Amino acid sequence: MAAPLHRDNLDACVFDAYGTLFDVRSAAERCSKGLGERKDALLALWRAKQLEYSWLRSLRGDYIDFWHVTGESLDYAMAATGTTDPLLRSRLMAAYLTLEAYADATDAVSRLRATGLKTAVLSNGSASMLTAAVSNSGLHRQLDWLISVDEVHAYKPHPSVYRLATERLQCPANRICFLSANTWDASAAAHFGFRVVWINRANTTFDLLPGKPEREITTLGALPDLLGV
Amino acid sequence: MAAPLHRDNLDACVFDAYGTLFDVRSAAERCSKGLGERKDALLALWRAKQLEYSWLRSLRGDYIDFWHVTGESLDYAMAATGTTDPLLRSRLMAAYLTLEAYADATDAVSRLRATGLKTAVLSNGSASMLTAAVSNSGLHRQLDWLISVDEVHAYKPHPSVYRLATERLQCPANRICFLSANTWDASAAAHFGFRVVWINRANTTFDLLPGKPEREITTLGALPDLLGV
Repeated sequence: MAAPLHRDNLDACVFDAYGTLFDVRSAAERCSKGLGERKDALLALWRAKQLEYSWLRSLRGDYIDFWHVTGESLDYAMAATGTTDPLLRSRLMAAYLTLEAYADATDAVSRLRATGLKTAVLSNGSASMLTAAVSNSGLHRQLDWLISVDEVHAYKPHPSVYRLATERLQCPANRICFLSANTWDASAAAHFGFRVVWINRANTTFDLLPGKPEREITTLGALPDLLGV
Repeated sequence: MAAPLHRDNLDACVFDAYGTLFDVRSAAERCSKGLGERKDALLALWRAKQLEYSWLRSLRGDYIDFWHVTGESLDYAMAATGTTDPLLRSRLMAAYLTLEAYADATDAVSRLRATGLKTAVLSNGSASMLTAAVSNSGLHRQLDWLISVDEVHAYKPHPSVYRLATERLQCPANRICFLSANTWDASAAAHFGFRVVWINRANTTFDLLPGKPEREITTLGALPDLLGV
């Protein structure tokens, strides 16, 4: 039987970035207010294609960094929704470099780090995208490592990505608490061997894939208590 | 410069199954008439998750056959849309075993085969799913090979899938004309080296990924003329 999910049984907390620490949706909504009814379709398609292209390129052995994937998926979403404003494209891409952290993120990461836990981001984002986001949000003071999939040229949920975190942090998977709001990421991380807490921000249905999180919370604010900190 | 896309420069025509030869959407719509407004959401989510789970499981190294993937994605779509009818589940799954060919498929495949071209299906579907679909539709008389990704335990667009077709048919990629209505499949097949014709049945936007089809037609009925048959 696994040890209880408690700070004493952990060496590190590893956070997904987009949707987990950083509020991409709000930033994108602000940039695209002028679109009216088309806004929701554009943003939903952009996000869906961004993930789809990351998976397809990994499967094809056709890796390109996440900045390019994000741009190509935005170009697709704009074309498919008949949106042609080049300034909007620039604004939406720039939003990725000036993201804000969720209100609950900074305090939670800070409290966990104060107990001596290592803290890291493990993200599809390229190193420059992650650096921009943590700097803009002020989270750079609370995060010891920024780990980008770019080092292994494969996207989540390829196991080499999760393995990279264990190597960087030099601790075994079962001493790492992994936090993600993305169900497919949380599932794969649990299957890999991390202790997983799912941040169910949007009240969604968990994926029917092997690998389930041990716990589910709705914001990162609940995490320190959950781990007995 | 590549040889013209003409029957004389080809040894085989390889067809994707679902959405290309077989009309999954109509079958699913017939089964779920009683759902009213929820029908479109359920069917769209089912298809999106079916593809997503095939990609995620391939990336994770967690392959399971397409019948299971199809069932798990249907269970997800039913849960996420609040649909609980177990009889509907059975009917939708059974629809995959009794698919009909698109009206334009049988004649086109038959005319191509009559010129001595080899004909094959290359599909994510498991062997039993493909056998059921070609038997029910009568297409078994027109198809020389049913090639399932199940043999390589990876889903499209992994290159091992496309390679499998070249091995089974014993001909080089550039002598195979590959037909798919799915843009991500058509793109990967072109990138692999097949001669690709995209069957753009739904008037959609082609994906912004490396690898483009040489030609685009709206039904398979236009294929024999396109190849000079």
